[in-house]
Amino acid sequence: MMSRTAVILMSGGMDSTVCAAIAIAEGFTPAGMHLNYRQRTAAREGRAFGDVCDFLGIEQRLVADTAHLSAIGGSSLTDTAIPVNEADPDATAIPSSYVPFRNANILAMAVAWAEVLQAGALFIGAVEEDSSGYPDCRKEFFAAFQQTIDTGTRPETDIRIHTPLIALSKADIVRRGIELGAPLHLSWSCYQNSERACGRCDSCNLRLRGFREAGRRDPLAYESAKSRSFPTGR
Amino acid sequence: MMSRTAVILMSGGMDSTVCAAIAIAEGFTPAGMHLNYRQRTAAREGRAFGDVCDFLGIEQRLVADTAHLSAIGGSSLTDTAIPVNEADPDATAIPSSYVPFRNANILAMAVAWAEVLQAGALFIGAVEEDSSGYPDCRKEFFAAFQQTIDTGTRPETDIRIHTPLIALSKADIVRRGIELGAPLHLSWSCYQNSERACGRCDSCNLRLRGFREAGRRDPLAYESAKSRSFPTGR
Repeated sequence: MMSRTAVILMSGGMDSTVCAAIAIAEGFTPAGMHLNYRQRTAAREGRAFGDVCDFLGIEQRLVADTAHLSAIGGSSLTDTAIPVNEADPDATAIPSSYVPFRNANILAMAVAWAEVLQAGALFIGAVEEDSSGYPDCRKEFFAAFQQTIDTGTRPETDIRIHTPLIALSKADIVRRGIELGAPLHLSWSCYQNSERACGRCDSCNLRLRGFREAGRRDPLAYESAKSRSFPTGR
Repeated sequence: MMSRTAVILMSGGMDSTVCAAIAIAEGFTPAGMHLNYRQRTAAREGRAFGDVCDFLGIEQRLVADTAHLSAIGGSSLTDTAIPVNEADPDATAIPSSYVPFRNANILAMAVAWAEVLQAGALFIGAVEEDSSGYPDCRKEFFAAFQQTIDTGTRPETDIRIHTPLIALSKADIVRRGIELGAPLHLSWSCYQNSERACGRCDSCNLRLRGFREAGRRDPLAYESAKSRSFPTGR
């Protein structure tokens, strides 16, 4: 019988928070995996991960320190000398926040843990449409990685990758999250590290646009009130 | 034009040492990548990596600390509480030294560095026949991982995985290494961490059998003289 344990990759962001809520709604026993790759926002995202797990009752947790991704470098997320791009809606190039082959690294770690736990599933909140052109957010990539799992794990292992958000828009994710009671107020998406989200970086922009398009209010506190789609009452 | 830079995964062991010598013989500019995943033998293998790079003139080097693989656990190589299996030639099960999905994790890191270096190749000294049944040492696995690279990296990136040892026996590897003048005397294969190789673990046994079948003397010093195929003169 297929194991009902699912490793869920949880950055602490909105997408993976909704992804976790979906896995739980589908009846999986969640095991939350968070990666600290010494990105700018590591501490803030780690706090969000803990808060979201507490809220969703996810007891089994693993925070993996992946400092090697910083050593490998080449990305503005892990190199504080390169400024974070402010959002440019016309940009078609891959943004400077790109960490080379990040999802493959993340999935490889998650599969290793899933094999240790004898889990039958692995959830990742990747989104194809709103992924700002990251090549490792596309369906073809995940299909290839599934093959890599099938050929590279023990014969008795059967781990399926679930990407329940892959075809959703940010507005769909907001709606689905609210519908499932996901703790969006505890999630953190901003690429800057502060108490309030900046409201200006690519990631804040995508999130805010999602709430705007879904006609909902983002419960998170933002630095720049003009970025908010709705007044907050604070 | 394809980049002639090649990332070479170098554990410090015999296979990857011969693999590096092959890459250099094929005209690639080598960049040596070594992973310290806090296995029992990390310090000894790190020294071997440095010695082999010095000998082969490999200037560009990266040692990535991959402590997360220990945290993920579940393997005798990273958990000192589980004893290392002595070699059992009749064993068909996957040995306890198995690190779940290790080659996928290793390749994912190497691809990230290769993308940063704009390298065109990635060499790994995996051996199918003598791999003690590790599922991620097989040709199908590497073919699947190539697809993962092709779909998961930037469009302008073109990194080909080279597995020049995949179909070789340990005896073939010994012969090829000697032919190319690879520094086998500096390489380290033993799963125990000491000045002299134990001569008894799975890895020592495979190496010694390779030398025996090639009719060559292993230049490495062993603890247990009876394991040696030929007297050493020490």
